[in-house]
Order: sequence, then C-alpha cells, then structure tokens
Amino acid sequence: MREDNSNKLETVTTKLVQMSELVGEAITKATSALLTDDLSLAEQVISGDHEINELNSEIEGLCFRIAALDAPMATDLRMVMGGIRMATSLERMGDLAEHIAKQVRLRYPSPSIPAELQSTFREMGDAASKIVAEAGRVIQTRDTSLADRMNQYDDTLDRLHRDLFTAVLSDSWSHGVEAAIDVTLLSRFYERFGDHAVSLGRRVIYIVTGEPYASN
Amino acid sequence: MREDNSNKLETVTTKLVQMSELVGEAITKATSALLTDDLSLAEQVISGDHEINELNSEIEGLCFRIAALDAPMATDLRMVMGGIRMATSLERMGDLAEHIAKQVRLRYPSPSIPAELQSTFREMGDAASKIVAEAGRVIQTRDTSLADRMNQYDDTLDRLHRDLFTAVLSDSWSHGVEAAIDVTLLSRFYERFGDHAVSLGRRVIYIVTGEPYASN
Repeated sequence: MREDNSNKLETVTTKLVQMSELVGEAITKATSALLTDDLSLAEQVISGDHEINELNSEIEGLCFRIAALDAPMATDLRMVMGGIRMATSLERMGDLAEHIAKQVRLRYPSPSIPAELQSTFREMGDAASKIVAEAGRVIQTRDTSLADRMNQYDDTLDRLHRDLFTAVLSDSWSHGVEAAIDVTLLSRFYERFGDHAVSLGRRVIYIVTGEPYASN
Repeated sequence: MREDNSNKLETVTTKLVQMSELVGEAITKATSALLTDDLSLAEQVISGDHEINELNSEIEGLCFRIAALDAPMATDLRMVMGGIRMATSLERMGDLAEHIAKQVRLRYPSPSIPAELQSTFREMGDAASKIVAEAGRVIQTRDTSLADRMNQYDDTLDRLHRDLFTAVLSDSWSHGVEAAIDVTLLSRFYERFGDHAVSLGRRVIYIVTGEPYASN
C-alpha cells in the first residue's frame, strides 16, 4: 500500500507537470498572438483551455481518491491537499492566457497593442513563460531553491506592469482611452499570472517543509 | 461514525456560510467606501481579509481530515471535495472586495470614481452583495433553484460592466485616461466577483445532483 500510494502521488505530480507544460504553451502562444496579431494562434489558445480545465478536474478527483482510500500522512497528505490547490493555480494561469488570446481576437485585425509597447509585452511574455517553466520544475523536483527564481520573474512582471501604467498615463500617450484600457488589462493578466505562479511555488515549499506560509 | 461524519460535514457548511457572510460584509463595505470615499471603511475591508483567508485554510484542513479519516461516499464525498473549491471561490471574492478597497485607499482623499458613475457602481455593489448572500443561502439550503437567481445578479453585473465600458469610451468622457482605467478595473472586480459566485453555485448543483458541469 505504501508503494501504491507513492505511485499515485507520482501520477499527481506527472499530471501537474503536464498541466504546467500546457499552461506554458498557452502563455507563449498567447504572447506570440499578441505580438503578431495572429488570430489562428489566439484561437488555438482559446480552444486549448478545456484541456487544462480537464486536467484540473482529473487531479482533483485523483487527490480525493488518494485521501479517501489511502489516508496519507505528513508530507504525502500535504502533497495530496496541495495538489488540488496547485491545479487551481495552474487553471487560473491558463484562464489568464486565454484572456490575453481573447483580447487579440476581440481587436483583430487591428493590432492589440501600440507598436512602441511591443518590447515591453515581449519581456512580460518572456517572464511569464519562464515563471511557469520554473513552476513545472519546482513541482517535479520539489527543489524549493527554484522558488527564488520564480520571485525574480514575478518582480520583473510587477515592474513591467508599473512601466506600462506609467506609459498609458504619460502626457505623450497618443492612443486614446480604449487602447490605454486594453494595455492595462493585458498587463494585469500577465501580472496576475505571475502572482498565481508564486502562490504555487509557496505551496510546494509548504509541502516540502511543512512550514505554513502566508496566503495572498 | 455515520453521525460523526455528518456532523463534520455540517461544520464545513457552517464555516462556508460564515465565510460567505464575511465576504458579504467585505463587498458591502468596499462599495460604501467607494461611494463615499471612506478611508477607514476601506482599511477595515483590507485588514479583515486575513479572517476570510484563515477560514479558507480551516475548511481545507477540515475537508481533508474528513476525506482521510471517514472515507465519505457519493454526495458526502462531493461535498468534501466541493467544500475546498467553494472556499477557494469565496476567498477570491474576498480578494476582489479587498482590491476595490485598495483602489479607494490609493486614490484617497480624491474620489475613486466620477460622480456621474456613482449610481452604476451602487447598482453593481448591490448586485454583488445580493449574489453573495444568495451564495450563502445556496450553501446552507442546497436549494439549487436559488442558483437561477444568482445567474440573474451575474447578468446584471455583466450588463453594468458593459455600460461602464461604454461610458469610459464615449466621446463625452471628460475624466482622462487614469480615471477610465480606474473605472474599468473596479468594474472588472465586480464582474469577476459575480463569476466566482456563479461558479460556486454550479459547484453546489454538482454536489446535490452529481451531474458534472462545465467549469469556466
């Protein structure tokens, strides 16, 4: 039964990693769609979200079956409890990638963002893709030192988010109110994406160490 | 043990209802703070959020102990699984009320919204307070017919969200870009608040009927 239990926990980990890979693809594609105004790429992200949602449900079911049938203790119990929360974080991150893709679709064939902000959004997309890749590695390896790197990417996202705020509020902003709102919302989606990744990282730390962490 | 189990499930329900009441207070106060630019009310919402987060953790722990110790089946198992998800929805709703309060604090002592949009935000706040009250009733009674009323309030929130978009994008908008962004974000917080309530309502339907529902 011990063996069995740890096999099932490995399945949870495998599915979480798989989920993080799908979310990674989603945010990378959503960013490309945003930067190149590529409708078909945006559609791929939108139609692919259900796969992420399904994995979320599978992980939930799996964790509860383990809890109910195997009565795990200590680290295993935290893993089973945390599995559901981590899946929820990844699902929200998938939703945020989808929100970005939907914004591209909404504005298509017009560009979703002004040309001069392309590089800032490219940087945001890059940090977001990296933070979710890191999240996958943290889940896989439970190497909590990686969580630090996640915080750095999150700081980058926060900084870029502030930069974009400054840009749309500056006197030299010439694209009007609608574009300012679009930029702010898009920027917020990336920033929230980072927040969910960080909260996932904290959850892994809790699983490994058993030390409670402040939720946000 | 059957008895014991159902007592524990009642505790989950009680705590979820308690959480919905705290979230209800939070959103009602956040709206008042927004409409009257009341900093101390905003601070109350911000400092009160940890209580909601703590209930969330308590419910999580409780559900897992039930799953691990009592091996619940069918409806009970769905309740235990759903308890965690419902607590997550309520926690997010609390966060959204807090986001609104933080926006009030950020702009204080300036008004957070233009005078002519007061009535729209009052209506939003009203629908948001009602939808979470309804959520509490649905959790308490498991009367799934109440979920319909939740959808109506959610429709109201969606409609008002669109109205506010139209307002900030109209040629007659005279408050500049920053106010337009503020209004859009605030409006989005209310709209997302409704979405989480609806997702909670769907979860209750699933617990009662066992019919899977589409996640969003």
